[in-house]
Amino acid sequence: MRTLPKGAHLFIGVDDLRLLQDIKRLEEALAIAFAHVDVRGREGKRAIEEGLGCVSSRGLFAGSPLPHFARSTMDGYCLRAADTNGASESIPAMLARGVEIHPVLTGGPIAAGTDAVVMLEYTEELEDGTVLVSRPVAVGENILAVGEDVPQGTELVRAGEILTARKLALLAAFGYDEIPVRDFRVLILSSGNEIVPVSEQPSLGQVRDINAYYLHAMCCRMGLSAVCGGIVPDDATQLYEALLGGITQYDAVLLSGGSSAGSLDYSRSVIDRLGTPGVLVHGLMIKPGKPTIVGSCHGKLVLGLPGHPLSCALTAHTVARPLLSHAAGLVKREPLMIEGRLVRPIASAPGRRDHIPVLVERGNVFPLLSKSASISALARSNGLLTIDEGCEGLSEGAAVSVEFWEE
Amino acid sequence: MRTLPKGAHLFIGVDDLRLLQDIKRLEEALAIAFAHVDVRGREGKRAIEEGLGCVSSRGLFAGSPLPHFARSTMDGYCLRAADTNGASESIPAMLARGVEIHPVLTGGPIAAGTDAVVMLEYTEELEDGTVLVSRPVAVGENILAVGEDVPQGTELVRAGEILTARKLALLAAFGYDEIPVRDFRVLILSSGNEIVPVSEQPSLGQVRDINAYYLHAMCCRMGLSAVCGGIVPDDATQLYEALLGGITQYDAVLLSGGSSAGSLDYSRSVIDRLGTPGVLVHGLMIKPGKPTIVGSCHGKLVLGLPGHPLSCALTAHTVARPLLSHAAGLVKREPLMIEGRLVRPIASAPGRRDHIPVLVERGNVFPLLSKSASISALARSNGLLTIDEGCEGLSEGAAVSVEFWEE
Repeated sequence: MRTLPKGAHLFIGVDDLRLLQDIKRLEEALAIAFAHVDVRGREGKRAIEEGLGCVSSRGLFAGSPLPHFARSTMDGYCLRAADTNGASESIPAMLARGVEIHPVLTGGPIAAGTDAVVMLEYTEELEDGTVLVSRPVAVGENILAVGEDVPQGTELVRAGEILTARKLALLAAFGYDEIPVRDFRVLILSSGNEIVPVSEQPSLGQVRDINAYYLHAMCCRMGLSAVCGGIVPDDATQLYEALLGGITQYDAVLLSGGSSAGSLDYSRSVIDRLGTPGVLVHGLMIKPGKPTIVGSCHGKLVLGLPGHPLSCALTAHTVARPLLSHAAGLVKREPLMIEGRLVRPIASAPGRRDHIPVLVERGNVFPLLSKSASISALARSNGLLTIDEGCEGLSEGAAVSVEFWEE
Repeated sequence: MRTLPKGAHLFIGVDDLRLLQDIKRLEEALAIAFAHVDVRGREGKRAIEEGLGCVSSRGLFAGSPLPHFARSTMDGYCLRAADTNGASESIPAMLARGVEIHPVLTGGPIAAGTDAVVMLEYTEELEDGTVLVSRPVAVGENILAVGEDVPQGTELVRAGEILTARKLALLAAFGYDEIPVRDFRVLILSSGNEIVPVSEQPSLGQVRDINAYYLHAMCCRMGLSAVCGGIVPDDATQLYEALLGGITQYDAVLLSGGSSAGSLDYSRSVIDRLGTPGVLVHGLMIKPGKPTIVGSCHGKLVLGLPGHPLSCALTAHTVARPLLSHAAGLVKREPLMIEGRLVRPIASAPGRRDHIPVLVERGNVFPLLSKSASISALARSNGLLTIDEGCEGLSEGAAVSVEFWEE
């Protein structure tokens, strides 16, 4: 029935397949991109107080053992274990303070010539400096040996690892007051004549730029540096110049709105003209995100993401995130999954992977499917449900695994 | 058997109860503090690109409906639904382009005088400008009405809410290029003669300051501003001056190492001298964290946390975090829980709540209990297991619920 009208590019929707001649499965597309996108980024430095959420640029090691001296794990007295052989409440060992037995606090160093700590509870100090010990202790008892917590040479964080509060505490213990961090820079561009800057009042037919801020925040959460480069009009020359500047000055470029509708034609050809190999994949068997463009120019990642904000956010998570993670050399992180039961059935087409924003509350998984409420669905969701290619849909009450949003 | 020796303060360990005469359950302690600690903080401004992880200082509302004009959800044509009554493939409706029927792209505005959109698939445009429509459409079909995504006046984020990528996207849609954020300032102090700055080489008996950086990162993750104020020697006068400066210039003060061992005596009295009511609670029925001091001076929160880094981190999470959250007026967030099975039994004393760092991997929960490896246990853990007061321990294979670390 359908006929392509004249001026057809004006009518090509995000679901239009005809220009996507070689649509690929997500894994396949990612594998192709992994092979063509170099791992990049320079090394910077961050003061430890500024390190949270940054990415370590190399493996960082324990330059000394921790503890670096044998420490008591109790308040009590250091002594030679042999001196307590046979000690009991009725016949305590009697040891000379300052000679055979030495007071020690939790964390304090073990006195030279001693090999055990007896807890304060099992001692009594007399006026004359004699200390009574009412039980035997074993060699090494209540002592934390040198390197017992962290042996010298231990890898504390790996290259490409995101720094948490716990990792920063570990690095502090080894004197890392400055941390070498990966400096990977992403340029974020928005395209479309209908897009206006967030500070402007949109008129009829216009919408504010939303995608740039979502993508920016996602990059920040990954420990990458992102710059919002503004809005590029629907014009091949201006797009070419903006993208060329991007791949010249940045490590990766994310373009939203550059993969669908009227822009579909020239985004693809512009990316191809930018550098080799250009477009690697155009068209993914995912929903949303089908018209996504995955490109690489001179080893740098260039992505064209959908302009629709919910589609852009979901595709950013499912496509841009793993690719940026590869390009920046990040350690692969297991997604945070939670189990729940679907409160409504969801239909899905086999052969296509669906990504659905969901709200998980007390084990109930509410799919936020409403096409009509995309921004609110994104904002209300706390996770993402994936329906795999082989699945034709999920019934009400189905047990599902939901990935929590990290960004 | 046990006798308190002379110079007893040198020997009082973190588990010593004698100076903790009124030990309290955690909930009770928190409730007392909530009643005495004011909600504080000023309002600052952040550019939207800098807003991730910040706390909104007030409720932010939709100043306009979204969309602000009726939009098409499909590529197709705007028309009056009534004009398609009875249309079929064999007898299509014939409508004049530009008069009765108007092309529209997904997201585009609905033409004046029309009330529905027919998908491109059900149309055929002839050379003479006539458009054939092969099925009837209903009023409102394929149209996103004004405010259907987000009605005008909707609260987009609440006061005290942490800004995620999704919330920033929502705020961008409504023109919030600058976001009013809460500015709540925390001073972090470390105490103890044995503590040296992270940049220094510790000698025998000394350890680097670890707690300050953990606490700093935890505050940052909560959207609070934190400053590491350095190390205060074990001296009541210097501690008094440091804390006084803290409660004068900051909204809250966290002191680590100020609650145990030798410092236990004077931290408490110093906090009492700082201002009324002073120490609210000294001693909690939790492990670790028993000697924690919860204080309030002129409505500002002052906390004394254990000096042992693992104890400090766990107590920061279980005690400092909810109190800071209250003081900064943050929206209460449900912790991120995951279910798993314990791979080893854990003993616990009834009447005491235990907090144990754990590593959760594929549903297996590994308790990281080793007293001897505290920093490494903290760094390796990805969550926290709580054993409630009423529980005497957990057996191997027990189903447990683990809270994921957020910081």
